[in-house]
Amino acid sequence: MAFSNGYPFTQRHCLSISQFSRPDIETLLTLGEHYLDLSVQKSGESKVLTGKTLINLFFENSTRTEKSFEVAGRRLGADVIGMAVAHSSVKKGETLLDTAATLNAMNPDMLVVRHGTSGAPALLSQKVSGSVINAGDGMHEHPTQALLDALTLRRVIGGDFGGLRIAICGDILHSRVARSNIQLLNMLGAEVHLIGPPTLIPANVDRWGTNVFHDMETGLQGCDVVMMLRLQLERMSGAFVPSKREYYHYYGLDRTKLAYASSDALVMHPGPMNRGVEISSDIADDPGISLITQQVESGIAIRMAILHALSDARDMQS
Amino acid sequence: MAFSNGYPFTQRHCLSISQFSRPDIETLLTLGEHYLDLSVQKSGESKVLTGKTLINLFFENSTRTEKSFEVAGRRLGADVIGMAVAHSSVKKGETLLDTAATLNAMNPDMLVVRHGTSGAPALLSQKVSGSVINAGDGMHEHPTQALLDALTLRRVIGGDFGGLRIAICGDILHSRVARSNIQLLNMLGAEVHLIGPPTLIPANVDRWGTNVFHDMETGLQGCDVVMMLRLQLERMSGAFVPSKREYYHYYGLDRTKLAYASSDALVMHPGPMNRGVEISSDIADDPGISLITQQVESGIAIRMAILHALSDARDMQS
Amino acid sequence: MAFSNGYPFTQRHCLSISQFSRPDIETLLTLGEHYLDLSVQKSGESKVLTGKTLINLFFENSTRTEKSFEVAGRRLGADVIGMAVAHSSVKKGETLLDTAATLNAMNPDMLVVRHGTSGAPALLSQKVSGSVINAGDGMHEHPTQALLDALTLRRVIGGDFGGLRIAICGDILHSRVARSNIQLLNMLGAEVHLIGPPTLIPANVDRWGTNVFHDMETGLQGCDVVMMLRLQLERMSGAFVPSKREYYHYYGLDRTKLAYASSDALVMHPGPMNRGVEISSDIADDPGISLITQQVESGIAIRMAILHALSDARDMQS
Repeated sequence: MAFSNGYPFTQRHCLSISQFSRPDIETLLTLGEHYLDLSVQKSGESKVLTGKTLINLFFENSTRTEKSFEVAGRRLGADVIGMAVAHSSVKKGETLLDTAATLNAMNPDMLVVRHGTSGAPALLSQKVSGSVINAGDGMHEHPTQALLDALTLRRVIGGDFGGLRIAICGDILHSRVARSNIQLLNMLGAEVHLIGPPTLIPANVDRWGTNVFHDMETGLQGCDVVMMLRLQLERMSGAFVPSKREYYHYYGLDRTKLAYASSDALVMHPGPMNRGVEISSDIADDPGISLITQQVESGIAIRMAILHALSDARDMQS
Repeated sequence: MAFSNGYPFTQRHCLSISQFSRPDIETLLTLGEHYLDLSVQKSGESKVLTGKTLINLFFENSTRTEKSFEVAGRRLGADVIGMAVAHSSVKKGETLLDTAATLNAMNPDMLVVRHGTSGAPALLSQKVSGSVINAGDGMHEHPTQALLDALTLRRVIGGDFGGLRIAICGDILHSRVARSNIQLLNMLGAEVHLIGPPTLIPANVDRWGTNVFHDMETGLQGCDVVMMLRLQLERMSGAFVPSKREYYHYYGLDRTKLAYASSDALVMHPGPMNRGVEISSDIADDPGISLITQQVESGIAIRMAILHALSDARDMQS
Repeated sequence: MAFSNGYPFTQRHCLSISQFSRPDIETLLTLGEHYLDLSVQKSGESKVLTGKTLINLFFENSTRTEKSFEVAGRRLGADVIGMAVAHSSVKKGETLLDTAATLNAMNPDMLVVRHGTSGAPALLSQKVSGSVINAGDGMHEHPTQALLDALTLRRVIGGDFGGLRIAICGDILHSRVARSNIQLLNMLGAEVHLIGPPTLIPANVDRWGTNVFHDMETGLQGCDVVMMLRLQLERMSGAFVPSKREYYHYYGLDRTKLAYASSDALVMHPGPMNRGVEISSDIADDPGISLITQQVESGIAIRMAILHALSDARDMQS
């Protein structure tokens, strides 16, 4: 494995896509492909985190992401300690720093953090000696989601994303998944189309070097991949979206809208899905089109890769 | 151990008592007896699930059963991942299948499922590649409870249940424990008496090949074992039971009623008990009569046996 | 390590400071110092609890203490099973004994218990065969907190506490931390000053062999260490304390009040802190004064020491 000879990965944390170089990303994806092999995942030989402690610190609920990190950490031999913190019961600002000091004194090697406030994992990373992995912060980033999406695509399409046209559809405004994916897909050479109602597209979107569309028919033209975003229930009525029904009519992915994309277009969704809101069951469950299940598999593999790479980099530096 | 030579156990899942043959049951009980030996449980030699992942997926709260599976899995060396899902927060139908797809992509070897809907574990077992163990589904079955009850009795009474008369008393209507026990005790050759008020006996009970009684005095005649069921708090007033006090008067097990059974009758309860409702403390705490603590010990041993047997069967088939 | 030759530690449980002899305490602190060395904590060599089961049974929430025991147990190789029990959902008295019987049947080697009722861990210890460690019971004791405080001081000041003057300030009345610390500091030869408003000092405090003060200026005279207690939010208004602001004015530790103590006085707090209520951020965050972060580090080390010592004592007796 290229990783073990002349490995250049020197990152201490995983906070955002923008921190990584293109070779860093290649290393992570290659290592992720290695861990997609289940016999590697389950064999005793790969216990590269034996004796290390990983703390899962989730200020927001996310069973899916939390358990993905827990399985990844355990398969690598780490002691995984879960700390689910109800968002309301922890005060912000200073108290996050007290939490950081307390955690740091427990001396974890890895700290996986989800927090409702953008930048909270970066702040924590300055206060603890272990590696911090951002598992989603506010409307900022969710880098491991973008990496798992890239790993999923690489498995199907191969390593070269040049010439690929990928649509990201739905609530771009509030989506950290979209922000991380846009950066990563740009870096890997894909062309990104953003599609959503004007109320759900950020004002400064032109800075991102993407094309923006407000209707699916135009936006999906020539797209090889369609990434649907989850519509948060609290946006479904009121200022952002008139109603579920109307949202589905204009932006929900069904066969008719999918036909605007390339004839062999693939569909992705970070889960959990709102069926009948942003995506039809018909498409979500079609194994010839939907990569949704593979995304979960890739999630564990890419998290194993990130934990492994960060731990290696840290060991080499100390 | 008979299990290791010529072992015929070929079940992929543990969904209901009816799926097992008599030799299957003998295998599980023999293996359960093996694991009742604590030195076997705690020694490193018995790590037959090392490198395997067990997910505890509980849609209903049950600390007792969940922790029993967790201890069993860990003693066998498995990575045990807990997923307590508040019943209300997960939608039914399609969404259970989405959950199944997500879990399956995490590739667990074992999935222990408790769900409020009868048949949910069976549905999941068709959608995942690992083994599904039913830890209680709706009013359907709770097979590991019946197996642990049988293991408990076998330790005290020996392997032959022929000629044994066993009473199951209380809320038969809503009890998955009763349904699993009736099937297993019938299969093992015991005679089963069901005792409860007419409102808590199912309509089709005559199909089960058991005798039904509405008063304890008649029903307990000649019984060697008295299994009391937990009365759910929500049944204690209203249509099913007039009041706690009246229920205890007619169906609560005290010394007077126990005297109707055989003179050396033993008492069981799946826990947790409502003392003074379905059973008196006097009886529950009498070590010469009550097997309630042994039932918990048997619970861990039989769950180790089931996990071991399912894993072995799967490894031989793949 | 002195522990391994001629080791006299024979305690079965850790329920209160008063149960330990002075040599017991020395053994625990020496072993705790050993485990403060992180390379010992993380190496595979120190897995003295491999194959042992530790159950964390918390009837009151305390992420900090619970996770400290979880990390300690895992670093020693134990299987750690968490049982967070909402205090309200478990009935008192008899039902605690049912819980004890159920847990005992699971055969844990160690049972770490936090409970809102004084004496609950002691009661449990009579009903289970494993070792019970009191992680805080009512207004009674929190022995591992006192031990970690002593370990923290020993690291800074050295082994001899004779001649040391230590103030414990705040809500003495409701504090199990204070009760355990007073006993341990007395045993180790320190002079203890208790400081707090008359409403928060227990009536029988003169029995404890300490000096009591109602104002910080007098109480802090000549003190080498100032231990601040957490003020429970529910005491902050009403009968005990007129208001947060007034409490801080009279008893909150700031630079002005700290100046009454010795010029190189050190500050401790068991956490989590109410900044601006019992302590100023200024002092809490000053690394030249505050030992608060070291207390958390000591917490894991001393809990490793206690688990190790109890396990060894038990193995030698059986």
